[in-house]
Amino acid sequence: MSTGKKKIEWVANYMPLLNEISKMGQPLKNWKIGMAIHMEAKTAYLAITLHKLGAEVIATGCNPLSTQDDVAQALAEMGITVYAKRTHDENEYLKTVHKVLDHKPDLILDDGADMTVIAHTERKEVLENLKGISEETTTGVRRIKILQNEGKLKVPVIAVNNARMKHLFDNRYGTGQSTWDSIMRNTNSLIAGKKVVVAGYGWCGRGIALRAKGLGAHVIVTEVDPIKAIEALMDGFEVLNMDNAVEIADIIVTSTGNRDIIKEEHILKMKNGIILANAGHFNVEIPMEKIEEMAEEKFEARTNVTGYKINGKTIFVIGEGRLVNLAAADGHPIEIMDLSFALQSLSLMYLSENYQKLDNKVYDYPKELDEKVAYMKLKTLGIKIDHLTQEQIEYLKKF
Amino acid sequence: MSTGKKKIEWVANYMPLLNEISKMGQPLKNWKIGMAIHMEAKTAYLAITLHKLGAEVIATGCNPLSTQDDVAQALAEMGITVYAKRTHDENEYLKTVHKVLDHKPDLILDDGADMTVIAHTERKEVLENLKGISEETTTGVRRIKILQNEGKLKVPVIAVNNARMKHLFDNRYGTGQSTWDSIMRNTNSLIAGKKVVVAGYGWCGRGIALRAKGLGAHVIVTEVDPIKAIEALMDGFEVLNMDNAVEIADIIVTSTGNRDIIKEEHILKMKNGIILANAGHFNVEIPMEKIEEMAEEKFEARTNVTGYKINGKTIFVIGEGRLVNLAAADGHPIEIMDLSFALQSLSLMYLSENYQKLDNKVYDYPKELDEKVAYMKLKTLGIKIDHLTQEQIEYLKKF
Amino acid sequence: MSTGKKKIEWVANYMPLLNEISKMGQPLKNWKIGMAIHMEAKTAYLAITLHKLGAEVIATGCNPLSTQDDVAQALAEMGITVYAKRTHDENEYLKTVHKVLDHKPDLILDDGADMTVIAHTERKEVLENLKGISEETTTGVRRIKILQNEGKLKVPVIAVNNARMKHLFDNRYGTGQSTWDSIMRNTNSLIAGKKVVVAGYGWCGRGIALRAKGLGAHVIVTEVDPIKAIEALMDGFEVLNMDNAVEIADIIVTSTGNRDIIKEEHILKMKNGIILANAGHFNVEIPMEKIEEMAEEKFEARTNVTGYKINGKTIFVIGEGRLVNLAAADGHPIEIMDLSFALQSLSLMYLSENYQKLDNKVYDYPKELDEKVAYMKLKTLGIKIDHLTQEQIEYLKKF
Amino acid sequence: MSTGKKKIEWVANYMPLLNEISKMGQPLKNWKIGMAIHMEAKTAYLAITLHKLGAEVIATGCNPLSTQDDVAQALAEMGITVYAKRTHDENEYLKTVHKVLDHKPDLILDDGADMTVIAHTERKEVLENLKGISEETTTGVRRIKILQNEGKLKVPVIAVNNARMKHLFDNRYGTGQSTWDSIMRNTNSLIAGKKVVVAGYGWCGRGIALRAKGLGAHVIVTEVDPIKAIEALMDGFEVLNMDNAVEIADIIVTSTGNRDIIKEEHILKMKNGIILANAGHFNVEIPMEKIEEMAEEKFEARTNVTGYKINGKTIFVIGEGRLVNLAAADGHPIEIMDLSFALQSLSLMYLSENYQKLDNKVYDYPKELDEKVAYMKLKTLGIKIDHLTQEQIEYLKKF
Repeated sequence: MSTGKKKIEWVANYMPLLNEISKMGQPLKNWKIGMAIHMEAKTAYLAITLHKLGAEVIATGCNPLSTQDDVAQALAEMGITVYAKRTHDENEYLKTVHKVLDHKPDLILDDGADMTVIAHTERKEVLENLKGISEETTTGVRRIKILQNEGKLKVPVIAVNNARMKHLFDNRYGTGQSTWDSIMRNTNSLIAGKKVVVAGYGWCGRGIALRAKGLGAHVIVTEVDPIKAIEALMDGFEVLNMDNAVEIADIIVTSTGNRDIIKEEHILKMKNGIILANAGHFNVEIPMEKIEEMAEEKFEARTNVTGYKINGKTIFVIGEGRLVNLAAADGHPIEIMDLSFALQSLSLMYLSENYQKLDNKVYDYPKELDEKVAYMKLKTLGIKIDHLTQEQIEYLKKF
Repeated sequence: MSTGKKKIEWVANYMPLLNEISKMGQPLKNWKIGMAIHMEAKTAYLAITLHKLGAEVIATGCNPLSTQDDVAQALAEMGITVYAKRTHDENEYLKTVHKVLDHKPDLILDDGADMTVIAHTERKEVLENLKGISEETTTGVRRIKILQNEGKLKVPVIAVNNARMKHLFDNRYGTGQSTWDSIMRNTNSLIAGKKVVVAGYGWCGRGIALRAKGLGAHVIVTEVDPIKAIEALMDGFEVLNMDNAVEIADIIVTSTGNRDIIKEEHILKMKNGIILANAGHFNVEIPMEKIEEMAEEKFEARTNVTGYKINGKTIFVIGEGRLVNLAAADGHPIEIMDLSFALQSLSLMYLSENYQKLDNKVYDYPKELDEKVAYMKLKTLGIKIDHLTQEQIEYLKKF
Repeated sequence: MSTGKKKIEWVANYMPLLNEISKMGQPLKNWKIGMAIHMEAKTAYLAITLHKLGAEVIATGCNPLSTQDDVAQALAEMGITVYAKRTHDENEYLKTVHKVLDHKPDLILDDGADMTVIAHTERKEVLENLKGISEETTTGVRRIKILQNEGKLKVPVIAVNNARMKHLFDNRYGTGQSTWDSIMRNTNSLIAGKKVVVAGYGWCGRGIALRAKGLGAHVIVTEVDPIKAIEALMDGFEVLNMDNAVEIADIIVTSTGNRDIIKEEHILKMKNGIILANAGHFNVEIPMEKIEEMAEEKFEARTNVTGYKINGKTIFVIGEGRLVNLAAADGHPIEIMDLSFALQSLSLMYLSENYQKLDNKVYDYPKELDEKVAYMKLKTLGIKIDHLTQEQIEYLKKF
Repeated sequence: MSTGKKKIEWVANYMPLLNEISKMGQPLKNWKIGMAIHMEAKTAYLAITLHKLGAEVIATGCNPLSTQDDVAQALAEMGITVYAKRTHDENEYLKTVHKVLDHKPDLILDDGADMTVIAHTERKEVLENLKGISEETTTGVRRIKILQNEGKLKVPVIAVNNARMKHLFDNRYGTGQSTWDSIMRNTNSLIAGKKVVVAGYGWCGRGIALRAKGLGAHVIVTEVDPIKAIEALMDGFEVLNMDNAVEIADIIVTSTGNRDIIKEEHILKMKNGIILANAGHFNVEIPMEKIEEMAEEKFEARTNVTGYKINGKTIFVIGEGRLVNLAAADGHPIEIMDLSFALQSLSLMYLSENYQKLDNKVYDYPKELDEKVAYMKLKTLGIKIDHLTQEQIEYLKKF
């Protein structure tokens, strides 16, 4: 079996919701779906699922760096049209987006909104046939809302990220686990007893802090929001400002969604051997340029780990300050992506059935589909929950 | 020193925010404040704080059962006009609300909205002088919104419960701790190794489940919301429906906000010696009437614990199925109420300054005051946090 | 029902092992057992259990301060001869020990070895009939070993405290829970977010630290043993010396088994409002005399809580520095004592059967009885565990 | 820089104790040390440390499978004589042991006792010069004790494994972390919400269960010791026998030190997609032969993961049932090995100074060295702890 096929078969074992959905018949028969996605095993299995539901799927990446060619190859062999290649530069990548659009898809499944924006600007002719878009990320939704505000959005869009089954789970449990998986495998360093600084106590930060505690670390949280700071405190963590935290830190993980969380003066105060990792979306939280500039020497210390000698001390950065679980490990755990992609599949099916009733605007993820995914997950786990009686429904109306 | 005074002095040790606020001068000088509150040490200290800020305070209870006469007595000696008495029946209690209104207060601090509703119906003449209301509870806000929707609300109202510094903390950390404090002190029963069923995984349920885990229990969660059910699962808890949970439960704590969480068929399946406690607002979660009806024998098993012999087994209920931390212990920890009452104090000061600019409607708690309380709390703890730089503020606007 | 009887009936609900043992027939028929025990509901139920097993039981306290007269009264009504009274002074108490010995018991169940020592010194005539002793505490065993070393011990003695089912559980889970039960109920103070210093990381300290973490505290451990210090660190706790810990502590719990854990210079550095509690056996860990001496003012701050004004700050001590779970709460949870007393019951039955084969020395608790109690506990919980196969037994012999 | 050198330099960052020890001068000057060790970066750094202390070091592996040739090469370049090679078969490996002995070492640092046994049997002539042995493992000590019991042991031996700084830490914190590191990196599977069965609740099992809980799993423990079973229960885990556990398990980790923990009937009951991992020393806990025999199909599912199709279901085994953290990850975290190797270094220095006073038998690890390592660790962490006063020392003598 090819390596690509093997990778896809592996994730298929732990994606029970996609497996369940793929048995739902042919609701997407005669629907052409254009996908722009990270071309790796988990997303590949989503493409296959849509294909099983009857759709013609035409796919490319959403970032050439994340494309795994063996997976793309396997997908192609399974009946998906694939244009992604790892070696593509930015320009070549954009050409593949155009190639997908050449197919005049009925639906777009987008990740970051490149395909959506191009369809609405350079390739307006494809809008004629386009009936709906399902967008995975917050960043993508933000870009689409600009189109909407300018009156340029021509199809209904479903924002998948605000589904409860997505944002409640992938940040806390996905990022929480995979950040530590990455740090442990890349450093072989003991977490128990370490002083771990988590910058930012949003959903990601909470997950990272919780798992660090679970691994025996002494966790210190930094925040700019005073209320979140008190939450961290009452969750049993120490709260310091970065200026004080950096002096005692063995490991710092940034997850703020903001830039320059670590500043020049902080770098000078760090302990020798400190490990820095970023779990925020963009690689601006750890100031890589500043570090490169300050370093007297830079060297590869271990696969995925770069050492910088600064002022007589050595600082280690994992995955070049990029999202540590993706840049230096396998991204979110499979089951987390299964939840997200179940939401995506239902979103596309929903658009195919309801697009005529929908306006050309960004819709929140439909509550009933959100709960449907939750019930499917419970079913695959064999878990039964309670249901409101009529009396209870009445009671809730009153109180 | 009188017992009432001693109780108030004790809580004063752990209410640093009220202590801080009481040093803010005389911003409430010449303001008359009518209070309807649970008349015990923590609320008494709020009344004293408002008094120190210059206000004339006239207080009664919001429920005669919660009135502690020694505290009321001590308050009276400290310059507060007090009408509450524990022995009052419903009718006498309502008369004390009228007595407070006789003073024609400028501001009302309400808990449950009895005073607000009476002012707007039977005692409309007091509205002339009334400038604003600060309401503590969700229930109270709901009642006031009915007034608002009917066009009858005549003053601006601030809903304190939706402040982040309130609902993020009192449910999770306040209810979480005080529920177990109550169960432990009233039963002397070991929690470690016990099968503890927590019904409902809202903020209260999360706190109760977390603390049970912290005490070594095997925690089982029941839910009607499939998404919360999966959250509970990923937090490491077992999820069952009540029908299965009840068969293995050693202790059941209800915190759903709904009625009849335990049903007749559940009662018959319970293990001998099971302990039932309710941490939800109203005493309808455990079906007390049904239990009384089914019991062949009822007896006081321990102070605050009633035993019921049903079908050859004995079931124990703490605090008659009423809110277990209030009915059978000391309510929320002092520091939690300090946060809530700091919010209340600032709310009243805000109303006194801004009432002329406000409409006669229910306002969300002002964000800036919410954060002010958080910063004050951090200051009393000696904790410094980070602050956004100008570059970071710019960055956040873009992403 | 009398209050004493009610107390005993309550604990009977949560002592499944004693309930199980009491069904074992009449193995102690015609045996006279002299008991010196804390006369409260849990020990009372042990006396009743022995009575049900056929023994004639004659009991007194082991410390008049711990005697509950209503329980003693209830015991008497249930056929036990009881001499304990709360109002007894030291001298009167010792007389009751003699009265028990007047009955010429066959077996002694001792707690602290007062009865054992008196029998071997002042009342040697009772040794003639005495066939064995079961001693609950480490302190008692130490005293008995002195007798043994001096060649004066005339009966076999079983040391119950070194049973794994005792020391593994009562310190960690018993002291861990009941210490926090006591601190919470006596202060109504929030534990989450507090800086809690635990002095000593033995079995008790581990339990106290674990439960504090489970309640959301930031836990700091102090130690004199460098290896335990590193254990605490790797368990995720902060480790400081007392000199530094005392400056940031909100609550200090001592559990070292040593004296003067807090020193004069520490007292001067404490934060205003600090809460001190001792969970070690003797009231020498917190230097009460020193505090009394330093205090400008002493006052009852709350039931069981004494305030001391020292140097402009107030320090609060729970339960006068005595074992906080006994002095200011209900002692160990019932289920923990059920384990200990099951060990005691089996120990007495073992002595009655085997005394002729035993030497006059202190015996470790028999391994097979230790495991028997564990299996009984598992059975009452309905838990099945695995059993070694013959192949596995062989394998273990080789590796 | 060569890959071997780079690996060694990486671990040097996180071995502060060896760094500290290497500054202790030349106490091993003119001492020849023969080493039989897993030839990888962490042990290499131990060899270098001994070299820095003045010793002439001659090394080979203790198992050719664990030899990393690039590390061996780097060691050779740094002045160590190295004979290990990964490609060696059993016979060639044993020849390298003889080659080390050809140097007539003064001291042996052994791991598993191959070198010790050969010296005492086939190569008795080397005993003439041999002054002492330091053995890392329990298995090795067992073999040496056979020599001792047969009167054949000719030098003093120090058993490093029973040092508290070793067994308290490497099993719980080392195995605990590295087992989950290995499972996560090899499966990309979510741990939160999974039913994880840990077979065996010894030091390893405790660490594995604790970390699984910290990652959000629902942990089930199986045991054959009823007392450990109750410990697991009171630590908040579910306890089942394997027969019941296997039906609900998503992941099973064995850590019992025994064989055939999973039996044929268990395999038939497993859920489809179950993941099996062994964290016990030998690969006999998961019955690999039985599984191979039962499998209709066997395939490589992912690097280090083998899939077996049995009875319509697929079972996955990581690392062929061998010690999962070594076979499929990087072994213990670096800091854990730093503790162990600090003990080893001090052990060799101790032998070099005291061998003339020692008998030819196995010695427990010296308490003072054990504490010395602990104090060194605290010092590198900048942590100060308390020290007993004279009064406290006196007190402890009495109670």
